Amino acid sequence: MKPTTLPVKARAHTNIALVKYWGKKDEDLIIPQNSSLSLTLDQFYTDTAVQFRDELAADQITFNGRTLTGDAQRKISRFLNVVRDLAGITEFASVETTNHVPTAAGLASSASGFAALAGAASRAAGLQLAPRDLSRLARRGSGSATRSIFGGFAAWQMGHNDEDSYGYPIAENVNWDIAVVAVVLTTAAKKISSRQGMRAAVKTSPYYPAWVQTATQDFETVRKAINDKDFETLGHVSEENAMRMHALNLSADPSFTYFNADTLRAMAIITDLRAAGYPCYFTIDAGPNIKVLCQKLAVEKVVSSLQSAFGEDAVLVVHPGPGLTFITD
Amino acid sequence: MKPTTLPVKARAHTNIALVKYWGKKDEDLIIPQNSSLSLTLDQFYTDTAVQFRDELAADQITFNGRTLTGDAQRKISRFLNVVRDLAGITEFASVETTNHVPTAAGLASSASGFAALAGAASRAAGLQLAPRDLSRLARRGSGSATRSIFGGFAAWQMGHNDEDSYGYPIAENVNWDIAVVAVVLTTAAKKISSRQGMRAAVKTSPYYPAWVQTATQDFETVRKAINDKDFETLGHVSEENAMRMHALNLSADPSFTYFNADTLRAMAIITDLRAAGYPCYFTIDAGPNIKVLCQKLAVEKVVSSLQSAFGEDAVLVVHPGPGLTFITD
Repeated sequence: MKPTTLPVKARAHTNIALVKYWGKKDEDLIIPQNSSLSLTLDQFYTDTAVQFRDELAADQITFNGRTLTGDAQRKISRFLNVVRDLAGITEFASVETTNHVPTAAGLASSASGFAALAGAASRAAGLQLAPRDLSRLARRGSGSATRSIFGGFAAWQMGHNDEDSYGYPIAENVNWDIAVVAVVLTTAAKKISSRQGMRAAVKTSPYYPAWVQTATQDFETVRKAINDKDFETLGHVSEENAMRMHALNLSADPSFTYFNADTLRAMAIITDLRAAGYPCYFTIDAGPNIKVLCQKLAVEKVVSSLQSAFGEDAVLVVHPGPGLTFITD
Repeated sequence: MKPTTLPVKARAHTNIALVKYWGKKDEDLIIPQNSSLSLTLDQFYTDTAVQFRDELAADQITFNGRTLTGDAQRKISRFLNVVRDLAGITEFASVETTNHVPTAAGLASSASGFAALAGAASRAAGLQLAPRDLSRLARRGSGSATRSIFGGFAAWQMGHNDEDSYGYPIAENVNWDIAVVAVVLTTAAKKISSRQGMRAAVKTSPYYPAWVQTATQDFETVRKAINDKDFETLGHVSEENAMRMHALNLSADPSFTYFNADTLRAMAIITDLRAAGYPCYFTIDAGPNIKVLCQKLAVEKVVSSLQSAFGEDAVLVVHPGPGLTFITD
């Protein structure tokens, strides 16, 4: 292959998992313990521009204008090595990333980050990968990035090896009544990374084998609910699945939790609203923030209730978003 | 048998479970899914006076001076029926209970309540039961009451039927360095009773079978730690066991939790103190309150830290307490 002479710029959006990925079978290749399913969102995204250049003596990576060093730099360089191997090139790259996601607060910035990087880096290296292969490549950086290649509802088929573990679209055009209210309770970086958290759950929770079984059932149930446009089942099973993921963490040794006091308050608000007849369900990733799946008739009430509790700026309404796109300035 | 001509008064103390009872095999007889283990405490107790009297047309039950009616009354009367059957008597009883435990806030007032009632009612009915049989009788009112018949560390052997499911002492004289700091975060009655909560866990948590296995292991580990006076193992396994019980609730369908914002804050305080070298571990029952197992050198620091967070009156230091006693005024 021959690298492009101009930078290639790609944009990918983050996603919220409705059936969670929480544990690997293979730590190097990032092969998960169960298939997962998510909704790509329209407001949180990452733009990444990549160019492989002969004159560079090392990869030069900036993130929101700051040059990365240490572990963060090495992680990206290792990912670029995968791209270089694939393309048969040896040039170092300049990588410029702008993130429009609160980093490391359970809003899965690594999903949009590695999806955008997989797109930009592969094309900048001269490769023209099909979506499935872009998803496999993105997986090498972050498991949840497999799904951010696609818009709307997307799945990550767990598979067993590098070949058969990839994302695919379930319903890219979400032409039904669904919105997500995101509550940013904190943008502070989490104490326990997803990687550490899921490793602890796999190794030390006595509930882990039952999690894999229940998540596998949930995957089928949610897939069918999407097909049937059955919001209640979609919401109920997604909320259950999230709580069972967090129950794994509580049952790990040592026990840990991503919840904080505000998380519990937000959960109680949504449970009460639902009891009052508003169609809304929450989900929580590896951080204290909560995202609420709503039908449109519930959005206004959910937003005002959460704003009363956490302030106007803490609440955002987002909608199903698109898959990976390439940007020409 | 012949009822006594004077009231019989008994006192029993509450206990905190270190290996939790959370689920029944038999709802009528109260046969649990796993054996449990607890420490009886010296400050929270129930006094109950019982007299069976010919002239009564119904059981007359007062609780803290208030006459019980409805479900609460029927529950006590059903228990008194068990005693009447056992003694072969038919007289109704007057029952006066004074509770020195915040009711229904996760401080297990039913444990001290039914232990005291089993003692007073059986003796007032003319029975002289051995401790094991008192424990079997107390079980018919509340599972955790089986252990409050005994002081110090006590176990409840799950058994399989009315005959072989009873409490027994592990170490009635706790002659080692241990104290419990109790934090009363709320004395409000809980929304989901223990009975409802454990039923939901048994029926709907996919993690329930693994809970039974892990609790069975924990029982053996904690019993050995008591024998070895190994505080670290005792504390660590007790805390783990509590978190795994609460993880069951989070994983139930619908999901629920007894934690509130203050519970999470208190947990974080204890985790931080332990990281700083203070030997202390928390446990939580079916309510938001937390109890902290400490070695004496940690008590002062644990108390002051929790008082700073929750106020002076919210924190109490308690110690191992005695088993059932009969009181003569």
